[in-house]
Amino acid sequence: MKPTASDPTGLHRVLDETVVLPQAAQRLDTRRQLWPDEVRIRVARLNLDAASFRQLERKHQDKGDASGAAIRAEVLAIVADRGKMQNPETGSGGMLVGTVEEVGPESPLGLRVGDRVATLVSLTLTPLVIEDGLAGWDGLGEQVPCDGYAVLFGRSIAAVIPDDLPADLSLSVLDVCGAPALTARVVGQYVAPTVVVIGGSGKSGSLSLAAARRAGAGRTIGVVPHEREAEALRAAGLADRVVVSDARDPIALRDAVAAAGGPADVTVVCVDVPGCEGGAILSTAERGTVVFFSMATSFSAAALGAEGLAADVTMLVGNGYVPGHAAYALELLREDDGVRGLFQARLGSEAAR
Amino acid sequence: MKPTASDPTGLHRVLDETVVLPQAAQRLDTRRQLWPDEVRIRVARLNLDAASFRQLERKHQDKGDASGAAIRAEVLAIVADRGKMQNPETGSGGMLVGTVEEVGPESPLGLRVGDRVATLVSLTLTPLVIEDGLAGWDGLGEQVPCDGYAVLFGRSIAAVIPDDLPADLSLSVLDVCGAPALTARVVGQYVAPTVVVIGGSGKSGSLSLAAARRAGAGRTIGVVPHEREAEALRAAGLADRVVVSDARDPIALRDAVAAAGGPADVTVVCVDVPGCEGGAILSTAERGTVVFFSMATSFSAAALGAEGLAADVTMLVGNGYVPGHAAYALELLREDDGVRGLFQARLGSEAAR
Repeated sequence: MKPTASDPTGLHRVLDETVVLPQAAQRLDTRRQLWPDEVRIRVARLNLDAASFRQLERKHQDKGDASGAAIRAEVLAIVADRGKMQNPETGSGGMLVGTVEEVGPESPLGLRVGDRVATLVSLTLTPLVIEDGLAGWDGLGEQVPCDGYAVLFGRSIAAVIPDDLPADLSLSVLDVCGAPALTARVVGQYVAPTVVVIGGSGKSGSLSLAAARRAGAGRTIGVVPHEREAEALRAAGLADRVVVSDARDPIALRDAVAAAGGPADVTVVCVDVPGCEGGAILSTAERGTVVFFSMATSFSAAALGAEGLAADVTMLVGNGYVPGHAAYALELLREDDGVRGLFQARLGSEAAR
Repeated sequence: MKPTASDPTGLHRVLDETVVLPQAAQRLDTRRQLWPDEVRIRVARLNLDAASFRQLERKHQDKGDASGAAIRAEVLAIVADRGKMQNPETGSGGMLVGTVEEVGPESPLGLRVGDRVATLVSLTLTPLVIEDGLAGWDGLGEQVPCDGYAVLFGRSIAAVIPDDLPADLSLSVLDVCGAPALTARVVGQYVAPTVVVIGGSGKSGSLSLAAARRAGAGRTIGVVPHEREAEALRAAGLADRVVVSDARDPIALRDAVAAAGGPADVTVVCVDVPGCEGGAILSTAERGTVVFFSMATSFSAAALGAEGLAADVTMLVGNGYVPGHAAYALELLREDDGVRGLFQARLGSEAAR
């Protein structure tokens, strides 16, 4: 029995027997026909969440099949089975890019047919049908060319892709636009704080470093895993200090951050590998704040880790939504040559792969 | 090769090949001999974390063995294998109670031999040896009589059990003492906020309600799953409004909280069942704060849930350590008859079981 009315949360498309939100649902209804407050998107590309893609990659490497075909088959199976792209292991999804195909008469999103948009809500709650078998994807990268359709709800968020920037650059920024906005908000709660960004040369990391400086950080420290990334981050000029350290080694990280002028008042975790909770906590001063943006974060490791260290730190679940986040991130990209350089280099190396 | 020096975090007792903190470790060194900054406790009782115990209970019920012997055997196996009590599924542990047996000459904890103490750091990072095979435990409750020993590090925390309160009552409060302290701090960041406590009649929930009122809440709403618990909470007088709702049903919870005077400025999640993230987010006003104390919380469900609902809420990982938390929780117990009544009733029903 389907509800006759739609709910802005998308509840009307949940096929599970118990009442859960689309994000928590096992299966979504992917029917083409729209409820009055919905929007249908013709999909051009999926951007898989980094933690999700790495998990799929590791899994199939462990099985000895590194061809990419196995990863592609698994993504197709997940989407066919669940009506959305949600990695069962990581719980995460990604975002998508496409063109508005139809707008329900009661949609509050302000979109028009033909608009090129990126969805800023996760694929984990977005009804999705893949119609081309992902024939254009080699299974070896997070960027997935795709033909199909997706549905946005009344309360979903989509950003119109700006005309003044290359599309792939905009998308790459919009994918992580929650991080700089929340970083700026947290930094603004301290006076000239020391800000450590773990994974400072990555997408969300470099934007967070730029946001921290703008929001009044007294000192910014970028942590990266390799000398090669350190060079790139130094060249970008986004951090006052650049530190090479394995974020999974808590003592090494604590000591490296201390040597660079830490501990941090604000620590932002942007690396998509498990096991960084302890090091982030130990690198943070009493009454400091740790913002966890990585989808590889373990709730219990963070909660019990801080308790076990008697660490009086505030720990935030990195909420990917902050009002104005898309415009803010695009502004950082436009106005900060360092950010732009890192993003362009990343896109270049992806294209070359 | 063992390090010759101890580290206040307990790193010197980690047996894993990579450098991780004791909480993240697979195995701890449980040798009796102390490093100079350590303390050894003669254990009298373990209090298993509620989420952990329920997981074990469900698992063995599903296997058709509800005798309790299976649960006991599993707890013994975990502790023997890992050198600590950490449920591999939930990642959580609990706390322990005992008497100080030996104090290293450089211990900063201020404990004396013979002190009756409760550990306020998790069992997930506490070296533990069980010496009686848990012969005194029926495997059917979270309270586990136990003879054995445990080790505290330089940075661990233990509370001396007060003389003016029954020991089981103190322990029961100390077990969850992080929740009221952090609730009070968050409530104090708002002006006369509406505070919703999900699981308001439980241990951490009732203390959090009392703390919220003291810290200046304008209105307190307790959410409970059954009418029986609603009656108990009403009788205790800890909440201005008591609401019966299934916290796993996000829409029902949102609507029930709204009808009781919500949405909340501060929502405190104290129920140890999975799937409460969406409802908590939907019950919270824009710019409100959700504090997740439940070890059943999923990081990705919280992060992606808020993003998917375009909800501008701050989400905190409930850190079990706030300075002064033990004394504050005991004060609430001493001075609030409602809290004391609920705790005593709970202990009574456990004893009767």
